[in-house]
Amino acid sequence: MPRFRFRPNPHNPYDVRYLQASAGETTTPEYLAINPRGKVPVLRDGDIIVHESLAIMAYLDRRFPDPPLFGTTPTQTGHVWQRILEFANYADDPMRSIILPLYFDTAEARAAEIHAARKPAHDELALLEHALSGADWLCCKPLSAADIAIYPVTKSLQRAASKKAAPQFNLQVLPIAAHYPRIDAWMARIEALPNYERTYLPHWRA
Amino acid sequence: MPRFRFRPNPHNPYDVRYLQASAGETTTPEYLAINPRGKVPVLRDGDIIVHESLAIMAYLDRRFPDPPLFGTTPTQTGHVWQRILEFANYADDPMRSIILPLYFDTAEARAAEIHAARKPAHDELALLEHALSGADWLCCKPLSAADIAIYPVTKSLQRAASKKAAPQFNLQVLPIAAHYPRIDAWMARIEALPNYERTYLPHWRA
Repeated sequence: MPRFRFRPNPHNPYDVRYLQASAGETTTPEYLAINPRGKVPVLRDGDIIVHESLAIMAYLDRRFPDPPLFGTTPTQTGHVWQRILEFANYADDPMRSIILPLYFDTAEARAAEIHAARKPAHDELALLEHALSGADWLCCKPLSAADIAIYPVTKSLQRAASKKAAPQFNLQVLPIAAHYPRIDAWMARIEALPNYERTYLPHWRA
Repeated sequence: MPRFRFRPNPHNPYDVRYLQASAGETTTPEYLAINPRGKVPVLRDGDIIVHESLAIMAYLDRRFPDPPLFGTTPTQTGHVWQRILEFANYADDPMRSIILPLYFDTAEARAAEIHAARKPAHDELALLEHALSGADWLCCKPLSAADIAIYPVTKSLQRAASKKAAPQFNLQVLPIAAHYPRIDAWMARIEALPNYERTYLPHWRA
């Protein structure tokens, strides 16, 4: 059993469990029966099991269409997915190349990778900043799956850029308000959402 | 203007154009106005432009819901996306590591990469083979976006494995019927679809 459960929300009939891979909680036989890849997240809804975070959102959108996660018109749906997939295909790799070495204290050994990732990462941040011109959310109101999918990466980048080894790489990310004011305001908007606190990883408080 | 257009289908009110990146057709000012990344595919529907192939399918599914591309129930939708995203997240990289060096005649220089990709690629092919147990399509009937998204990769792998440099890598892919009989039958099913011939890249005939 996972050592930690998020505080249940009495208004929402679901139970959120936080599994710690480093403690072996994603490789137990029970968990591998749910997801043979031993990855998080997984959604279980009665007998239905869905993994892959974007697939979980697609499932939830059909199961509980209000509020919509992928817009309400074909154009909105296309553009929410386009934003998500462009980010996955072009931004994820450079972001990871910066974030992971700083998280796992391998930044010195992977310095060349971090330096090479700076420009493509900033190019993608500039596209997000542009997408937020005169808009509260990346694609459409209310927030969409694009905001939910992309926010954790920008948050991780912010956290990575505050690590002790970061300054030598001159990432020009912090404070985000100085470099990307619209991204900063958008992150604040997400962090003000009613259930945000419940999703925050406990060890990130440290 | 692209040098080649697929033969128009009189029954379908759309026009398919094949752009050749190596001939500069994806970096013309007109094309960059449609997709600033200069990538294919792009869909234009009136004033609406959508890029990223999966986003195009999500758009088309909302615009023309029949036949459905992402199933008709929340569970089917979740599982179609799960299949697509698992393939993208776990299979694409090893497949590319085999396909691209063989396509671009860099197999000798990238031999270590090809060797390392063999096991993960076969693991993912085995999962597809398993998904096709007693099923005509990867997720649900009629064929879904999962079949459409994954087929081109298996086809490219088949084509790469037939290249002159391939035998030295002992890929154990050809003939597909010998290694993965259900994948072979599934590919034949896709290739028998009425519009399949219209999508086949002309230089692949060579």
